[in-house]
Amino acid sequence: MQIAMIDDRIVDIRELDSAYMDRGTFFGDGVYEVLRSYDGRIFAIDDHLERFARSLNEIKIEGVDIDQVRLRVLEAFEQAHIANAKIYFHVTRGSELRSHVGSKGLKPNFFLTVTELPDDSEKKTAGIKVATHPDWRWKRCDIKSLNLMANVLAKIEAEKTGCAEAILVDESGYITEGAGSAFFMIDTTAKTLITRPLGPEILPSITRKVILQVAVKASLTVTERPITPAQAETADELFIAVTTQDIVPVTEFDGVTIGSGKAGKYTNILIAEFANMVSAGI
Amino acid sequence: MQIAMIDDRIVDIRELDSAYMDRGTFFGDGVYEVLRSYDGRIFAIDDHLERFARSLNEIKIEGVDIDQVRLRVLEAFEQAHIANAKIYFHVTRGSELRSHVGSKGLKPNFFLTVTELPDDSEKKTAGIKVATHPDWRWKRCDIKSLNLMANVLAKIEAEKTGCAEAILVDESGYITEGAGSAFFMIDTTAKTLITRPLGPEILPSITRKVILQVAVKASLTVTERPITPAQAETADELFIAVTTQDIVPVTEFDGVTIGSGKAGKYTNILIAEFANMVSAGI
Repeated sequence: MQIAMIDDRIVDIRELDSAYMDRGTFFGDGVYEVLRSYDGRIFAIDDHLERFARSLNEIKIEGVDIDQVRLRVLEAFEQAHIANAKIYFHVTRGSELRSHVGSKGLKPNFFLTVTELPDDSEKKTAGIKVATHPDWRWKRCDIKSLNLMANVLAKIEAEKTGCAEAILVDESGYITEGAGSAFFMIDTTAKTLITRPLGPEILPSITRKVILQVAVKASLTVTERPITPAQAETADELFIAVTTQDIVPVTEFDGVTIGSGKAGKYTNILIAEFANMVSAGI
Repeated sequence: MQIAMIDDRIVDIRELDSAYMDRGTFFGDGVYEVLRSYDGRIFAIDDHLERFARSLNEIKIEGVDIDQVRLRVLEAFEQAHIANAKIYFHVTRGSELRSHVGSKGLKPNFFLTVTELPDDSEKKTAGIKVATHPDWRWKRCDIKSLNLMANVLAKIEAEKTGCAEAILVDESGYITEGAGSAFFMIDTTAKTLITRPLGPEILPSITRKVILQVAVKASLTVTERPITPAQAETADELFIAVTTQDIVPVTEFDGVTIGSGKAGKYTNILIAEFANMVSAGI
């Protein structure tokens, strides 16, 4: 008899909840999105759904109706009654006996959570510490896949030294992005916002996209080029960008204090302009 | 209220089966092993448990008793009553609300299946076709982690052209290994068995280790060096090695017939010697 074992419990494989046979667990064979709401309004849902559709397409999961995903997101958000919510969802290729190439016509699994976001106002003032870590990720980081082992390991290492984020560095010695965020540098003299150009090495971050639009309101020109850790250490201002917290100042990089050790002038302007954009309901 | 949604069903997040909140699914945050039995006897269990302990250590999952894992494997195998069984198991860092750095003291999840292996005697005679694919995997392929998206995508592509395995090629133009197997070349003139040396780019395959021991019985000397696809295409003999099928001849590589298009002489000797080793209960 084909059987499964969950801890010490043996069960007939046919009686298992399909969650135990999810290709998401066996292979990380799925893609995900994280959205947030500000004061009861979901931010940039179109951008997130567009990126999600692209991710699905890249890993060749077929038969997912993006309009249905939208309706599910809206329905779950409405039922949760959480003003500042984090909405996570993923789709995996489906559940069946483990085999690398899944069966044709397997029904994809959809899973979503709506949870409450913690208040991050302190982080936005004090900033966070970050530490570099080698970028061990795969070669298609433009796909928002469930293969996040390298990100987890980098974050675990960063946390050991009291850092809230790991900044990943590629084999050429350039920063790609944070383990769970985009990474930015500001040259206040040149009034320039610098970040790595899009490519297979980084996620096409939606917060990044909004920030590049907002930059003009902070009188910053945008330069897309890779940054080295040495350049970051001597930067005037640094920050990370992530959907759940938008802009978070970085005040210490690999043990080196950045600027005055507080959120920088232009970073604060960007935070304020980002908030304006959110309030305007864009 | 914090909620979850499974397809169209909304549930209170506190009432979810823990399988839905598994870090194995959220991050591929776990490691696995696949063992097999031959005629009622599990092969190389010590090697598999040793590698599993190393994988756990590398990703810093603590508190897993390897002796308990051994007992679970033996118990499940005994209960299944399958002579030629595939035994898969994984441990993930545990189940909780999604957050990259998991909670301290989280209890790891153990999951195992025992299933019946198909008869592979035809493959061992006719051989298989393989196709190359860029190696998109992460930089720690020596860890047998659940991050297998790149392997799945390569296998899906290979299958489109009727190939049973994808052979991964790194950025320097060298073969690393198969998407789910080790890769070997035989130079019959020089009586040499060639395979890539161990390192972070490949899994320390247990079948590989046994084959390198068996090689001497086939009068083959072993050379560990990287192989290019061009070298593979003109090889005298090729084969892959994987726990569930041990040695499988490769008779077509990227559309090019290898040798006579059948299992080669030395490959057949290795298959026979491997079988002898299995029968001897080593």
